[in-house]
Amino acid sequence: MSKKNLQIIVKQFPSGWVQESDFELTEQPLATLLDNQVLIRNEWLSLDPYMRGRLMPGKSYAASAQVGAVMVGQAAGVVIESNSSEYKVGDHVLSYSGWQTHFACAADQIKRIDASLVSPSAYLGVLGMPGVTAWTGLIDICAPKAGETVLVDAATGAVGSVVGQLAKSLGCRVVGVAGGARKCEYAVQELDFDACVDHNDPLFKDNLKAAVPNGIDCVFENVGGAIFEHVMSLMNPFSRIALCGLVSEYNQQPYGNQQMRSILVNRIKLQGFIVSDKPQTWPPIIDALRKKVLNAELKYRETVAHGIESTPKAFIGMLKGENFGKQLVKLD
Amino acid sequence: MSKKNLQIIVKQFPSGWVQESDFELTEQPLATLLDNQVLIRNEWLSLDPYMRGRLMPGKSYAASAQVGAVMVGQAAGVVIESNSSEYKVGDHVLSYSGWQTHFACAADQIKRIDASLVSPSAYLGVLGMPGVTAWTGLIDICAPKAGETVLVDAATGAVGSVVGQLAKSLGCRVVGVAGGARKCEYAVQELDFDACVDHNDPLFKDNLKAAVPNGIDCVFENVGGAIFEHVMSLMNPFSRIALCGLVSEYNQQPYGNQQMRSILVNRIKLQGFIVSDKPQTWPPIIDALRKKVLNAELKYRETVAHGIESTPKAFIGMLKGENFGKQLVKLD
Repeated sequence: MSKKNLQIIVKQFPSGWVQESDFELTEQPLATLLDNQVLIRNEWLSLDPYMRGRLMPGKSYAASAQVGAVMVGQAAGVVIESNSSEYKVGDHVLSYSGWQTHFACAADQIKRIDASLVSPSAYLGVLGMPGVTAWTGLIDICAPKAGETVLVDAATGAVGSVVGQLAKSLGCRVVGVAGGARKCEYAVQELDFDACVDHNDPLFKDNLKAAVPNGIDCVFENVGGAIFEHVMSLMNPFSRIALCGLVSEYNQQPYGNQQMRSILVNRIKLQGFIVSDKPQTWPPIIDALRKKVLNAELKYRETVAHGIESTPKAFIGMLKGENFGKQLVKLD
Repeated sequence: MSKKNLQIIVKQFPSGWVQESDFELTEQPLATLLDNQVLIRNEWLSLDPYMRGRLMPGKSYAASAQVGAVMVGQAAGVVIESNSSEYKVGDHVLSYSGWQTHFACAADQIKRIDASLVSPSAYLGVLGMPGVTAWTGLIDICAPKAGETVLVDAATGAVGSVVGQLAKSLGCRVVGVAGGARKCEYAVQELDFDACVDHNDPLFKDNLKAAVPNGIDCVFENVGGAIFEHVMSLMNPFSRIALCGLVSEYNQQPYGNQQMRSILVNRIKLQGFIVSDKPQTWPPIIDALRKKVLNAELKYRETVAHGIESTPKAFIGMLKGENFGKQLVKLD
């Protein structure tokens, strides 16, 4: 265990694609704890597409990261020193530590997790923000009925894989879009999707159309760009779209979507949402997801990078879709 | 009164902008009535932007017009012959006659209107489809609260003028977008809008931004294209957009809207709607609008072309925004 706190600092906001050189590894002494604080040794750093939105000065749905400060993000770790009566050494906790090996913070800023039956990393994925995101967009916004066709892109990611499995459990026809035959195979064979279409295939448009013979009733949108535009052309009357992310557009000029007419003609509801807006909904959703995981009704997959210094590269890979399931960094 | 039925036939579907040559005036003998039919002499033809969507083979929100048949649309007229016990000669009625001077149809396909206190033409505008459209999009979809900023484009049109006046009556800040200083002046001085921005002004973007110092909470969208895109960049968190029309895009290539990110970041609800989906809501809405009109709480303006042969030109003018308020054709 390091006696230093290793941190990844934002050196500059990226222009276009994120570069490793936009970050810098630094070393700080461990913090001296104040009253009611705990010191956490991080075991898992969470990497999520929304973080790209923090790396810019403009308006996003959360405060920006700061140039010169630790890159923001959630982490799972273990309490190694405590000045709080609520936490003892050895407790597993979640925090908004950002990209660093250690984090000192007030006890009311962290959350205890039960690591007895599932890995703490699950609370950064299927049992955490991504899982609640999937539930909220699918159940609360799309509200699919049995027999309807649900489409989700980034289908094997931390969010998309939960969306698809939940929609299957509701009796929907579930069609995924993912990058590469391997991911599509996983979606169909392991996650039980009815179909999955590879967006790298030159026949993507034709293949997608063939995969939704009854049109599309619900979309859980993570990607944006040309894929989303094509999806919108296949929507049914009175269909719903939960707009969760636009990861294909985060690193480049925004895409000009020519399917506004489909929203009009098909009376589509398109609803943007951010899962952190309704924190009160999280505990019951996480309980429900946890039961499904423990009953093996909900599968999840993780891609793990190792060591704090691997974080920027793993983050960039995730933005490019190189990960498979939830992207994590494991710290020693 | 003509003893012939003069009709405007769709000669071909327009490609791009509608041309007068896409239509043809023809003459038919008056129909011989069947049992339970009435013969109507039309007094007013309704011209509405949605009709452009009927002039194409593709999917719109209603059945297409047919090449070789009378152009579709609503009309107000007078019963001049009746084989129905429900209607007598002299009754004022609405029908989906299309562009012709006379129309014979079954009694259950028409609707009686009370022309004693308002012109029959009002039932094609403020007390008809456009008025109900305004109410539905504003009240049911946008649901603005007092103090919120409501934006409506095509602000002096049959729909927009009702939207703005209703929003004012709810205590909102109302900002219009219209084409030309004259229309904007009317919106502010006659309709009591708080501001109106001329989209033909080279400083349109700056002017619009200045007109919404607290951002935009609700949009009633009729126009689409670059105007809508700029409007979307000024939306507040948790704002709502009722998508009613895209008239700027009906005659050309669809516009590539680059503001999808605003929907995500601001958690916007964008809802397309078609007022004919909920016919059961019309009577109480029309009653409420009629009370407002009779109490002089709701103003409306009409642009009237004269004679059946003027209809195609008036229709094209309306699509270009040359009308002021509701565009009608008065038949002799």
